[in-house]
Amino acid sequence: MPEYTIEWDAENECIIYIDQTLLPGRHERMRCTNIDDLARAIRRLEVRGAPALGIAGAMGVALAAVRSREQDLKRFFDEVGRAGALLRGTRPTAVNLAWGIDRVLRKAALATSVDEAKAIAVAEANAVAEEDELTCRRLGGFGEELFPARCTVLTHCNAGALACRCWGTALGTIRSAIAAGKDVRVIACETRPLNQGSRLTCWELLRDGVDVTLIPDSSAAYLMRKGMIDLVVVGADRITNDAVFNKIGTYMHAVAAHHHGIPFYVAAPVSTFDLARKEADVVVEERDRSELTHCGEQRLAPDGVGVLNYAFDATPLDLVDAIVTEIGVLRPPYTESFRLVGMDEETRS
Amino acid sequence: MPEYTIEWDAENECIIYIDQTLLPGRHERMRCTNIDDLARAIRRLEVRGAPALGIAGAMGVALAAVRSREQDLKRFFDEVGRAGALLRGTRPTAVNLAWGIDRVLRKAALATSVDEAKAIAVAEANAVAEEDELTCRRLGGFGEELFPARCTVLTHCNAGALACRCWGTALGTIRSAIAAGKDVRVIACETRPLNQGSRLTCWELLRDGVDVTLIPDSSAAYLMRKGMIDLVVVGADRITNDAVFNKIGTYMHAVAAHHHGIPFYVAAPVSTFDLARKEADVVVEERDRSELTHCGEQRLAPDGVGVLNYAFDATPLDLVDAIVTEIGVLRPPYTESFRLVGMDEETRS
Repeated sequence: MPEYTIEWDAENECIIYIDQTLLPGRHERMRCTNIDDLARAIRRLEVRGAPALGIAGAMGVALAAVRSREQDLKRFFDEVGRAGALLRGTRPTAVNLAWGIDRVLRKAALATSVDEAKAIAVAEANAVAEEDELTCRRLGGFGEELFPARCTVLTHCNAGALACRCWGTALGTIRSAIAAGKDVRVIACETRPLNQGSRLTCWELLRDGVDVTLIPDSSAAYLMRKGMIDLVVVGADRITNDAVFNKIGTYMHAVAAHHHGIPFYVAAPVSTFDLARKEADVVVEERDRSELTHCGEQRLAPDGVGVLNYAFDATPLDLVDAIVTEIGVLRPPYTESFRLVGMDEETRS
Repeated sequence: MPEYTIEWDAENECIIYIDQTLLPGRHERMRCTNIDDLARAIRRLEVRGAPALGIAGAMGVALAAVRSREQDLKRFFDEVGRAGALLRGTRPTAVNLAWGIDRVLRKAALATSVDEAKAIAVAEANAVAEEDELTCRRLGGFGEELFPARCTVLTHCNAGALACRCWGTALGTIRSAIAAGKDVRVIACETRPLNQGSRLTCWELLRDGVDVTLIPDSSAAYLMRKGMIDLVVVGADRITNDAVFNKIGTYMHAVAAHHHGIPFYVAAPVSTFDLARKEADVVVEERDRSELTHCGEQRLAPDGVGVLNYAFDATPLDLVDAIVTEIGVLRPPYTESFRLVGMDEETRS
């Protein structure tokens, strides 16, 4: 059985997750038994990655439900709803978090007793996790068809097993391509300032025996110029009807890929889409200055310097050659593609 | 008197320099009394920046000369020549280093006695340093004319006072624009993997009271998209007849600036030009993997991961809107500009 990034511990009624802030130095599984700890773990990026945040949101609602001592159904739902609202505020840009929370809240709301609501919440949270794995494997299967038989793929941040239950989205397409017998080498960008590429992508690909090479984010364009990159594949935190929000740096890779005529692909589950919104509607998180001024205990910048630390950027869809989802590969013009798969309808409902 | 980044201590016959690996935490001036220490200081980037390397090369030859115990002129020149060769090998990409070494070697070779050669070497090394300051101030004066009265300027790495004797090249244009009464704000890219932007550019601009904001390298393109950058100015380590070699990441900024229609300027003294060569003739240094796998004591990447750590990249001249030098601003077509200022002739001689 693969090790899951995040899962429900039925026996102890709690969440178990890999603390990603400790990787690659330490690989530890943590137990989370209350909402405040989960909110902190999400804010600290101990759990991160859009699909994993969807699972965390879902399991967070389940955790609040099973731990509630309320007997009155109305007050029980109020309490669980407050837990959902607390979790929702931890990462405003990632749409999956809210999606996972809402899915469990809505399903539990059908219950006619507190006990039934608890059982439904846990079952639905587990369903979200199980579906995530199926989603990644289906998405990977569609995505690998975009890979030549032998290629070097650039990726940014970590849209891997650690960003999902397992397998991954962007890294899922790579795993599926390798599973299909293709010769795939990966270039991983370190992904400043929190180095999810160095720490997480390199760690999980190396663990799986994938050929992976670490580079500074800023050298990707130069490697493209030197003909060393065949395609780019990244994940997404939110896809609006005009742009892909993903880890800061993604847009830079899209511009560079476009300049060099290299395909730029986004791999993301349908739960990442937020087609009722536009780029301009989305608030991009700014994270703490210390992420740039310090590395561990080491000071990297002088006291008092201004810092601008956007966690994400937005890549307009006209720079995206394909979006790989679990229901197939979407191609431009996206307005048409979204309509064909009924996504525009869904988001309007 | 401004504090110089590197200077000759006549009394003690040695070189004094600011150890840039200690900034911004510690600001210390080191004494260097022998060539092996100087070579190590250059390799470790205690002294770095193309013009400062020119001065270091020149002063290194002077140091070898004054410390030599040879009385025979031929053996003296052999010894000093070996010192020059040792220094030349420390940083293969920066052309100024070899330029500074050769300039002092050639001048000293005119001497007819060892004592005269020593005196000439020291005088010429000091001349290189003094000219560097004049060069930066003249270059700054030409460059500031490219700045609007109010603007936000993106820069990469450190082409500042710390990369020269003082004032700087790219940062020299910014200092000159501010001295001319312009309202200039600076966005400094951290410049992975050694963070010369965070550590050095932020430190020296903050010290001078310049408004400076630190960003991750990967967010520059996104800030351009958001209309937050008016122009880009960077230094250069070597300019061939088709490309600008500079710190890794420079090319990415050039591509992004081009995509957004933002002017991309290079500020570099004539000593940086190597017009007899093409991009393909230049070896780009690859630096140690530990620069990416560790930050101080902290491990950032798993053991055994592949690393590709180019120190520089090459930006084709067709992405460069102007090259600012101490003899004026060169504009495309550069073949024509180089010919007009007689540069093509010089490099052929």
